[in-house]
Amino acid sequence: MTVRVGVIGTGRIGSDHIRRLTGTIPGAEVVAVSDVDTERAELVAGEIGATAIPGGTDLIADDRVDAVVVTSIGPTHAEYVLAAIDSGKYVFCEKPLATTAQDCLRIVRAEREFGSRLVQVGFMRRYDAGYRAMKRVIDAGEIGTPLIMHCVHRNASVPDSYHSAMAVQDTAVHELDTIRWLLGTEIARTQVHVPRSTANRFPHLRDPQLMRFETEDGVHIDLEVFVNCQYGYDIQCETVGELGTVRLPDPPDVAVRKAGQLRTGVLQDWTTRFVDAFDRELREWIESVHAGRLCGPSAWDGYAVAVSSDATVRALESGEIVEVRLTEKPELYQG
Amino acid sequence: MTVRVGVIGTGRIGSDHIRRLTGTIPGAEVVAVSDVDTERAELVAGEIGATAIPGGTDLIADDRVDAVVVTSIGPTHAEYVLAAIDSGKYVFCEKPLATTAQDCLRIVRAEREFGSRLVQVGFMRRYDAGYRAMKRVIDAGEIGTPLIMHCVHRNASVPDSYHSAMAVQDTAVHELDTIRWLLGTEIARTQVHVPRSTANRFPHLRDPQLMRFETEDGVHIDLEVFVNCQYGYDIQCETVGELGTVRLPDPPDVAVRKAGQLRTGVLQDWTTRFVDAFDRELREWIESVHAGRLCGPSAWDGYAVAVSSDATVRALESGEIVEVRLTEKPELYQG
Amino acid sequence: MTVRVGVIGTGRIGSDHIRRLTGTIPGAEVVAVSDVDTERAELVAGEIGATAIPGGTDLIADDRVDAVVVTSIGPTHAEYVLAAIDSGKYVFCEKPLATTAQDCLRIVRAEREFGSRLVQVGFMRRYDAGYRAMKRVIDAGEIGTPLIMHCVHRNASVPDSYHSAMAVQDTAVHELDTIRWLLGTEIARTQVHVPRSTANRFPHLRDPQLMRFETEDGVHIDLEVFVNCQYGYDIQCETVGELGTVRLPDPPDVAVRKAGQLRTGVLQDWTTRFVDAFDRELREWIESVHAGRLCGPSAWDGYAVAVSSDATVRALESGEIVEVRLTEKPELYQG
Amino acid sequence: MTVRVGVIGTGRIGSDHIRRLTGTIPGAEVVAVSDVDTERAELVAGEIGATAIPGGTDLIADDRVDAVVVTSIGPTHAEYVLAAIDSGKYVFCEKPLATTAQDCLRIVRAEREFGSRLVQVGFMRRYDAGYRAMKRVIDAGEIGTPLIMHCVHRNASVPDSYHSAMAVQDTAVHELDTIRWLLGTEIARTQVHVPRSTANRFPHLRDPQLMRFETEDGVHIDLEVFVNCQYGYDIQCETVGELGTVRLPDPPDVAVRKAGQLRTGVLQDWTTRFVDAFDRELREWIESVHAGRLCGPSAWDGYAVAVSSDATVRALESGEIVEVRLTEKPELYQG
Repeated sequence: MTVRVGVIGTGRIGSDHIRRLTGTIPGAEVVAVSDVDTERAELVAGEIGATAIPGGTDLIADDRVDAVVVTSIGPTHAEYVLAAIDSGKYVFCEKPLATTAQDCLRIVRAEREFGSRLVQVGFMRRYDAGYRAMKRVIDAGEIGTPLIMHCVHRNASVPDSYHSAMAVQDTAVHELDTIRWLLGTEIARTQVHVPRSTANRFPHLRDPQLMRFETEDGVHIDLEVFVNCQYGYDIQCETVGELGTVRLPDPPDVAVRKAGQLRTGVLQDWTTRFVDAFDRELREWIESVHAGRLCGPSAWDGYAVAVSSDATVRALESGEIVEVRLTEKPELYQG
Repeated sequence: MTVRVGVIGTGRIGSDHIRRLTGTIPGAEVVAVSDVDTERAELVAGEIGATAIPGGTDLIADDRVDAVVVTSIGPTHAEYVLAAIDSGKYVFCEKPLATTAQDCLRIVRAEREFGSRLVQVGFMRRYDAGYRAMKRVIDAGEIGTPLIMHCVHRNASVPDSYHSAMAVQDTAVHELDTIRWLLGTEIARTQVHVPRSTANRFPHLRDPQLMRFETEDGVHIDLEVFVNCQYGYDIQCETVGELGTVRLPDPPDVAVRKAGQLRTGVLQDWTTRFVDAFDRELREWIESVHAGRLCGPSAWDGYAVAVSSDATVRALESGEIVEVRLTEKPELYQG
Repeated sequence: MTVRVGVIGTGRIGSDHIRRLTGTIPGAEVVAVSDVDTERAELVAGEIGATAIPGGTDLIADDRVDAVVVTSIGPTHAEYVLAAIDSGKYVFCEKPLATTAQDCLRIVRAEREFGSRLVQVGFMRRYDAGYRAMKRVIDAGEIGTPLIMHCVHRNASVPDSYHSAMAVQDTAVHELDTIRWLLGTEIARTQVHVPRSTANRFPHLRDPQLMRFETEDGVHIDLEVFVNCQYGYDIQCETVGELGTVRLPDPPDVAVRKAGQLRTGVLQDWTTRFVDAFDRELREWIESVHAGRLCGPSAWDGYAVAVSSDATVRALESGEIVEVRLTEKPELYQG
Repeated sequence: MTVRVGVIGTGRIGSDHIRRLTGTIPGAEVVAVSDVDTERAELVAGEIGATAIPGGTDLIADDRVDAVVVTSIGPTHAEYVLAAIDSGKYVFCEKPLATTAQDCLRIVRAEREFGSRLVQVGFMRRYDAGYRAMKRVIDAGEIGTPLIMHCVHRNASVPDSYHSAMAVQDTAVHELDTIRWLLGTEIARTQVHVPRSTANRFPHLRDPQLMRFETEDGVHIDLEVFVNCQYGYDIQCETVGELGTVRLPDPPDVAVRKAGQLRTGVLQDWTTRFVDAFDRELREWIESVHAGRLCGPSAWDGYAVAVSSDATVRALESGEIVEVRLTEKPELYQG
């Protein structure tokens, strides 16, 4: 049995997912693609022997499609995800689930009404081997109850179009989900401090930023976001518990000793850093679709991250601590 | 265009390769399988929608098969590889290429007669990210001309059936290829020293063993093989050049600080250590078949390793330095 | 020429310094000691052939004493340091310089009036090889202008008498000096956040604490103080600049691979961690006394740290950001 | 009570030891110095308030001298050490104990006749924190019975006067002692392999060299000596036991992330690498003289290393395995 997948949006990330589903993941087949650029859709469809369907909603409704991957631009996500729920079809939606928390909530409610999980959101870090090992250590109680988490998210550089709020919406959003998932709790308060900015930036950009989150049960998290750090792409995370700490490893590289130095390389790019996580994410999604039981990041996760992200943007603008107010968590997403 | 693959031998490694070719590698399809256990062949064929063909030679001859994967037991390899060459079909053969150097040489000669490369041997370490990074550093001249290589190959334990010569034939054989490949030269002399044996062994087994290899151009390599080291699976390699050294990284793991210790995990098993290398190996083989130009480990590599391995077994038995005498390298394998 | 030193206070740290000055530091001799416990002073004096002098002030005034080490209890420091300045004698004072910022300021003013530096404060981290290497990297411009500093200060455990403000006064005080020294600037604002406390603590103690400091020129520093972390004594520091970062190494230890783990030891105790720094501190102090030109931590440093520490205690109590208001820096301490 | 030390030889290492004994080690005083360059002896004596005594033998005989440090040139060592034994005085002799194994044996016999230990040889690596930690791990049985040891000894470069046998006599000699001490056994056989030499060498010099040692109880040790490795001074040692392994740490340094690299510094020089070991060596020697019971490297150690060193030079010249034949170990050096 093969899951027949329809993909809406054939840009960079869409193409990547099509490549994975066509080539590297067993039990899946891309049968239909859709894109606002219909010529591009035709082209991609032709390459893989799929059908190009002009509109995303039509693709979702098509009987040949068992499950949907949404990789179109953010503002279209909510509509497609809701349509998929309407059709009772599984849908994998790249982050963000929707561009407003309100739309995320509509999706949560639609799914709850449907009665079982159909939606998975593309928070791929949950599939990274290092983060998973960290979660196993925490869940096994090896470091005792977590109290603090220190996170760092650095990019070598960002394009000119990147603005200060994107440090939250595009960058910190990964940690907003990872923190909740690692700790098994919700973020309750958020705050942003802005140190002196790097000279290697655009005038409009506040970079780096130091974010602070507090969970419902009092864990404090600090997160450095520094998107023009020059030296490379660097993701760090340490969880401090009552009995010990656990820390992500640096990506492995050969060690060269030469000219008075011992050196290893630093990655330059998130695609290299998380390529395995992306692969595993889609593979496990297909497996869970086969099993008829989703276990990846849910619509609720998408919603909670959206609310935290909005609060953090307001915190950045105001300099104040901002409360993260979530609706009550439906039973569907408990446990 | 899809490469239609026939797989001979559906044991552990055969099944793994079938899973890869069926699920995770684009541009390939397993269309036929064969096994001495015909029921097993039928079963596996049924699962993936392939045809079970009673004999390996018939599978090779079958028009529906573009390329062959040989994962049957070692003594059958030579016959199947030679048959594939006869049919002018690409063949991926798990190590060993053949159980005798003489048979390896027959394959080399058959392929040379055919006039272009058809054979790839399953030396998967060439596809490991760490070894590849090391080769890039060496080839770029970063450490200058290599002079020395230090290697370690440790297994947590081996079964009772493992005997002393297998430390060469099954274990060191990986380094015998890797050393040649990293240094771009042939091994010329080999020697084995046997220190006091571990008490955690079978009476018949000399473990650990210290092997020494010298290349044609005077690089000296030492290799510790210790297959009952108890603590885990551990592969180490350092190349020392005129200007510096380069060393494989340890596999990454989260670092836990607890109870006065900072600790990371050590892998227990070669499958975990080289799982990515196995994936990449078959993927690149299929790509090279598509391109019509093989670039992985060749029949010559299989032959040269067989000769070195035989010499090293004799060195183990005699305690003497043994010369590795290769036939002249055909032009087909130059450059 | 030998510096004849008088030591006031023969407790643990006093005895340590006497041992160093008597045995391990060239060019110094302890000629007089004083202690409120006069019997103890007699005993210690006897052991090293020095004179016991009943009162600290008399010791300072004694002609046989060239330079004074103050290691008595904190509340007595100011009086002795002021007396030493009055006598025009060099004085090395363990931290704190005085128990109030007001008294520190009196010392600063007395020294300024005297016209040249006589006072050194015992901030020994400035003599640690790792911190010094970090300072060299920063000062050489290798990481560009510093923007952020991440610090961690963990103790395995503290006694019952340790209370929440001591996390600032006794523990963070080291970082308060180190930060100013590494960055070459003053701390301007301070704040403390208190996450959920560890269960391995006394009911009265807020542990861990997350402190935030901002320098005059906009560098933001975060400091985790966790004094019952159970696993060991652990000091971490990373400085993030416009071009790169620099991080303290972990203390070296042999690496043991055993039973599926790769592990090194974590120190349990600050004396082990900073033993070399303590030695170097006194050695360089004696050298600078010989040279007639102090270059270690000054009375101004003691004063600035006292003001920052007071502000941080108020920040802990109030939960607010507290400004650090220093008097104008006298020329004596410039440059 | 102070040990009154006489130092014979005031060159680089002699001056270093005089500095340590004068300044940094409690319970010792340099009262007399001697040098073939009498003017130099006078000068050094004047600086520290000691007496210059023209001949080393006279210095040893002088009643003002309790213990002797021999740091004159190697060929004079035996005479001075024997004279010290004659006088019943403790003597610390820099390596080598004597320039021939025969003279070492004369010293061993003289000391045995005297009836208790008077001689310590300057094998300072036994005082290095890393080696000591390794010995604790081995002695505690943590890695089980040792089977193999891998050692590396690299220097950035050596002067033109350095010739091939010095790779044994001056360089490997440190490992020859360390191996015996770590394993608590004697070296029984030795062999040297010479790979292709580095181009960064003098024509007369075989560099690098790969030495092999076997202990009486069958442990095999390999040692790479590479004295023109260009990149720095690098000492590595890993001991492999039946249950696990233990490895020396790299010297600590701050880690800089910059321009796509994570790098730390490599030391350039043995003085930096072993400065703490040199300090501890002399301090513990003075302590053991005070205690009247030597426990550092003995005359027997000096003898055994001399015999191993001679054997290894012969092994280098012959290319053969050479037996290390020691006389019977006197009871004085047992246990």
